[in-house]
Amino acid sequence: MPISTIEWSGRKIKLIDQTKLPHRLQFLCCKDLETLWKAIKRLKVRGAPALGIAACLGVVLGVGNSKAKDYREFKIDLDKVIDYLSSSRPTAVNLFWGLERMRKVACVNSDKPIPKLKKILLNEALRVIQEDKSLCRQMARFGSRLIKDGDRILTICNAGALATADYGTALGLIYRAKEEGKKVKVYVSETRPLLQGSRLTTWELKREKIDVTLLCDDMAAELMRRQRIDKVIVGADRIAANGDTANKIGTYNLAALAKFHKLPFYCCAPFSSFDLSLNDANKIPIEFRDGKEVVEIFGRRIAPWGIKVYNPAFDITPNELITAIVTDKGIIRPPYKKNIRKIFSVKCKV
Amino acid sequence: MPISTIEWSGRKIKLIDQTKLPHRLQFLCCKDLETLWKAIKRLKVRGAPALGIAACLGVVLGVGNSKAKDYREFKIDLDKVIDYLSSSRPTAVNLFWGLERMRKVACVNSDKPIPKLKKILLNEALRVIQEDKSLCRQMARFGSRLIKDGDRILTICNAGALATADYGTALGLIYRAKEEGKKVKVYVSETRPLLQGSRLTTWELKREKIDVTLLCDDMAAELMRRQRIDKVIVGADRIAANGDTANKIGTYNLAALAKFHKLPFYCCAPFSSFDLSLNDANKIPIEFRDGKEVVEIFGRRIAPWGIKVYNPAFDITPNELITAIVTDKGIIRPPYKKNIRKIFSVKCKV
Repeated sequence: MPISTIEWSGRKIKLIDQTKLPHRLQFLCCKDLETLWKAIKRLKVRGAPALGIAACLGVVLGVGNSKAKDYREFKIDLDKVIDYLSSSRPTAVNLFWGLERMRKVACVNSDKPIPKLKKILLNEALRVIQEDKSLCRQMARFGSRLIKDGDRILTICNAGALATADYGTALGLIYRAKEEGKKVKVYVSETRPLLQGSRLTTWELKREKIDVTLLCDDMAAELMRRQRIDKVIVGADRIAANGDTANKIGTYNLAALAKFHKLPFYCCAPFSSFDLSLNDANKIPIEFRDGKEVVEIFGRRIAPWGIKVYNPAFDITPNELITAIVTDKGIIRPPYKKNIRKIFSVKCKV
Repeated sequence: MPISTIEWSGRKIKLIDQTKLPHRLQFLCCKDLETLWKAIKRLKVRGAPALGIAACLGVVLGVGNSKAKDYREFKIDLDKVIDYLSSSRPTAVNLFWGLERMRKVACVNSDKPIPKLKKILLNEALRVIQEDKSLCRQMARFGSRLIKDGDRILTICNAGALATADYGTALGLIYRAKEEGKKVKVYVSETRPLLQGSRLTTWELKREKIDVTLLCDDMAAELMRRQRIDKVIVGADRIAANGDTANKIGTYNLAALAKFHKLPFYCCAPFSSFDLSLNDANKIPIEFRDGKEVVEIFGRRIAPWGIKVYNPAFDITPNELITAIVTDKGIIRPPYKKNIRKIFSVKCKV
């Protein structure tokens, strides 16, 4: 039974506080925008598609108290909310995609009375949640054909229910494969520094009764050398027009190792993770986070004071290392530039 | 000023308790064999050459209280001590090398009175310490020529003073390069699960005023892709006759990534780390440690209960990924089988 990661709960956003997992399944109610902003910043809610949803619901929350009497006044409030949410995290494009979607809906409905407009925005956000649920399942239907009975799959970070409304991208493929009767074994790289693999993905997979084994990030290569991995499946935070992909730090590590060991490497992401305004990944802004995340665990220091720390939250996987990209529109294979354009123009025609 | 990691201190072994670093520089006095065995098992003392020294001093400590009146009785006690210490950790060959060296010295001197024999064994152990100090410096003299001014060097785990008597293998090269006036920047992979990189290597390098930056193990590939690493230098726990090398888990990860990014990858080890009885690494016993090391930090759980954990303490780097092996006899380059044999036969002739 999938778990609902983030939802609208009458005037507030209810989300799982993922920093409390795996110890406690605790919900956080965001009644104001600042609480949501902090929840995003501190990774209480994370995962590219979930950030897209958070952005949409955040707009609803943010303009909820707007006292604007006309669209001109409302637009000022809306822009403030969007600017504020934009400043939370830079890499996952879904957040900006969600904000832009809400901005456009407001613009198209600028002739409506403000209370009506607020209602329209709420409906749009709820539609985004429904879409996400359906997109993830669609992606899983396409992608599960890449999974064979008996496969041993390596993943990193969390691209599961906790990264989406309720089903997941990369893990969705695994859930679907299981529904189809395939037995799989999932190896989860713990994903330092914030341990989304060990804290979230193992928790989620265990809950779904999937055979799960945890490893440290420096052990993946050894597993591959021993031929104990058949394929790597990961999520994506932003995909450029040529297929270059930004995802959680450590993803490129696995992609390079998969290439080196001749293993297939798959990225899974809905259309909202594609940023076709970028030709390649060079322009994707990479979030660097506080070095404290590396040198402290549970507030306890694990390294000496006064040293430098390198802590990018994401890395770039160049398209040539990606065997295929699984989307809600189908599986995209190289040449990516051409095939991504094709799949998106098909989408536009529909 | 190098720090003394392990030494004989009149009837007891004094060693730095490395589990207390980087917070406290605390010494542990081992007055009995069980304390030493636990210190080895729990990694209070670790690093292949330091384990060789611990083995030799352990024999001295263990037979110290022997009430044997003749060699036959003494041999029984000695064998017990050696068997016991052999059971502490399986991968680093230096431990077994140290025990065998002591066994041989006892055998050669079996005609001596027992008190005299004990004295001879102590002197042998002290000689091993002196040799280690001199071997490491010799290795550094050979190896520092591989380091250029301005180099950005990546390392993993701790192959420094804390892994030897007082100078280090891989880090010894860096110390020597610095003494020669070369400026280097060292990137240290934290080395999960036990964080020897963040806890020990950054502490040691900072103490020696080397420019040091810490990263998580899943970030090394990203640094290489950005061309911010010039070479990788690591230690070794056991090297087979063909150059295949066992070292701390994560080493193979870096070796594969170095190959993928066309960067030189160097292993550093004294002759006591070579196990010429093994044609290749297939027979090197790999220590698997308690999964608790992965799922707990400071006694706090970071993963759900009831999941499987993969926790090998070492991995194998096949010889074809190693650019050169730096030893106290010189730098060995491929073909390793031939060149390792050559360098060791030279040693035997001397």
